[in-house]
Amino acid sequence: MARVLCITLNPALDLAFNLDALVLGSVNRPTSAQLEAAGKGVNVARVLAGLGHDVTVSGFLGADNDAPFQLTFTQYSLTDAFVRVPGETRINAKIAEQSGRVTDINGPGMPIDATHLQALIDTLNTELSSATPPQAVVVAGSLPPGLSLDDFSALLNHLNASGVPLWVDTSGPALNAAIATHPAGVKPNENELAEWAGADMTSSDARLNAAKRLHKSGITHALISAGAEGVLWVNAQGAWHATPPKVTATNTVCAGDTFVAGMLHGLLTHQNGQQDAEQTLRFATALSAEAVRHVGVGNPHAADFDSLQQHTRIRRLDDTITEGATL
Amino acid sequence: MARVLCITLNPALDLAFNLDALVLGSVNRPTSAQLEAAGKGVNVARVLAGLGHDVTVSGFLGADNDAPFQLTFTQYSLTDAFVRVPGETRINAKIAEQSGRVTDINGPGMPIDATHLQALIDTLNTELSSATPPQAVVVAGSLPPGLSLDDFSALLNHLNASGVPLWVDTSGPALNAAIATHPAGVKPNENELAEWAGADMTSSDARLNAAKRLHKSGITHALISAGAEGVLWVNAQGAWHATPPKVTATNTVCAGDTFVAGMLHGLLTHQNGQQDAEQTLRFATALSAEAVRHVGVGNPHAADFDSLQQHTRIRRLDDTITEGATL
Repeated sequence: MARVLCITLNPALDLAFNLDALVLGSVNRPTSAQLEAAGKGVNVARVLAGLGHDVTVSGFLGADNDAPFQLTFTQYSLTDAFVRVPGETRINAKIAEQSGRVTDINGPGMPIDATHLQALIDTLNTELSSATPPQAVVVAGSLPPGLSLDDFSALLNHLNASGVPLWVDTSGPALNAAIATHPAGVKPNENELAEWAGADMTSSDARLNAAKRLHKSGITHALISAGAEGVLWVNAQGAWHATPPKVTATNTVCAGDTFVAGMLHGLLTHQNGQQDAEQTLRFATALSAEAVRHVGVGNPHAADFDSLQQHTRIRRLDDTITEGATL
Repeated sequence: MARVLCITLNPALDLAFNLDALVLGSVNRPTSAQLEAAGKGVNVARVLAGLGHDVTVSGFLGADNDAPFQLTFTQYSLTDAFVRVPGETRINAKIAEQSGRVTDINGPGMPIDATHLQALIDTLNTELSSATPPQAVVVAGSLPPGLSLDDFSALLNHLNASGVPLWVDTSGPALNAAIATHPAGVKPNENELAEWAGADMTSSDARLNAAKRLHKSGITHALISAGAEGVLWVNAQGAWHATPPKVTATNTVCAGDTFVAGMLHGLLTHQNGQQDAEQTLRFATALSAEAVRHVGVGNPHAADFDSLQQHTRIRRLDDTITEGATL
């Protein structure tokens, strides 16, 4: 199994309330209330650790309310290398009513300054220069207040310079900045990539063109997800399309993070011949479909996971390439 | 300094959001969001520990989200003897808008069953029979789902039987049940006691009568608080009234807990002659006034705390008694 470093720059504490109807100015009694440490990099880490990898998590955490994160790290056997920043990690409350109306209250994050960024770089340098350095680095999620696009680009360039394959999963201007640094892998969805592509991404042809352009721009593994329509993967060995099995989607929050973890698991585990590539994509797509059936990340130990993999359709889009895919 | 055991049967995680105006069905950005481990017994414990006492906290905590509590216990040097119960401690969100409108969403607590209650009794027995048993026990706050009034009475009777002075701070039917077990001290406010007293408690005469009746019913220290109108104290040595100094009230949540802790501090520390009783009541009343000026418990190290004590007026209501007050 591999060592992986998962970085979340802007984690959150998610609080989900379910209630019949919210009455303002009154005391409301929800049917359920759940608080959870959240962060895209932490989600990727949970899946990878569950698959047996040795995962270190890092990024920025507010020093004043990091207890739920510490509990999560312990629970999922993640090594904690988060830099503590004075203040509190933002809290995002989601109030869901029976009517389907959802009200979000997204707390402010604590601002990051140059000292905190340097502390993070020092921490990451220690990880990268350790006796057993990570075999992959993932940076996932949005940017915290105070961290500019230039800071973000500099951080990604620094990570790329280490030679360890870097995967970045973010959106908006941060995604554009990330693509320009040529990480080993990106996995935007069709909406997240539309701005970079400068084109409508609703057709599968448009997505394939964009994936090819992404790959040509210097991204070893260009992946574009489009929900139930599946995933495109373009690398030096070819192009594939995966269609997930039909499932009832309950919660899609962790689907993308689960997919990224599934891809990394395959690439880090297999020999990466042609058959291995298809197996990797099948595994990641099926695991992501497993995830959308419930709250939280995908579970490869689900009773019907074999069936989910069998019902995942993988299609080779061209056959010009014979070599195996490498991470 | 003394050893004190503070029990919270129904703790909560308090989440306070402040925002301009809540827009339903949208993503709202609050100006602040704070999550805090809360519980009346924990508040009393924090004040007592801050005053140098050796404090153990107990009660029931949900096993799945006890991390913020663990952090609080570490931060305030409280010894953790909480029984863990499967599930989550309730989360209470308070959404405060600029208009002054406050919307509460109070999560459900995890239900307590006979096994959990027995685990708590076993834990408390260990504390009470230790080489250095507590010199006072405090039970504060409401009852969790599943814990009946009969269970509560049995628990209080068990604690009373240990011979360690027991103070109970609760309200409603639980307060009536507590009074019937003759604890060493109670401190209801005028509203909390109205049901027991069966009388309107708006006049200070009605409150004094009720306090005297409470004392005669078998409560060593009968205290009744009435906000800015002050506190009444009736014990075997006499009756006193304390008027707090004028302060701008910002948050009264921890005022009562701070007062109970201040009283216990005085009774556990001083010789408890006549002068000591006045000093105890003055200290507790001033500390409670300090608490209402801000969020959280009272701070005896506040720069103007001496002045707050000097501006606290203590009045002896009768002079029939000469002996000192004992806990």
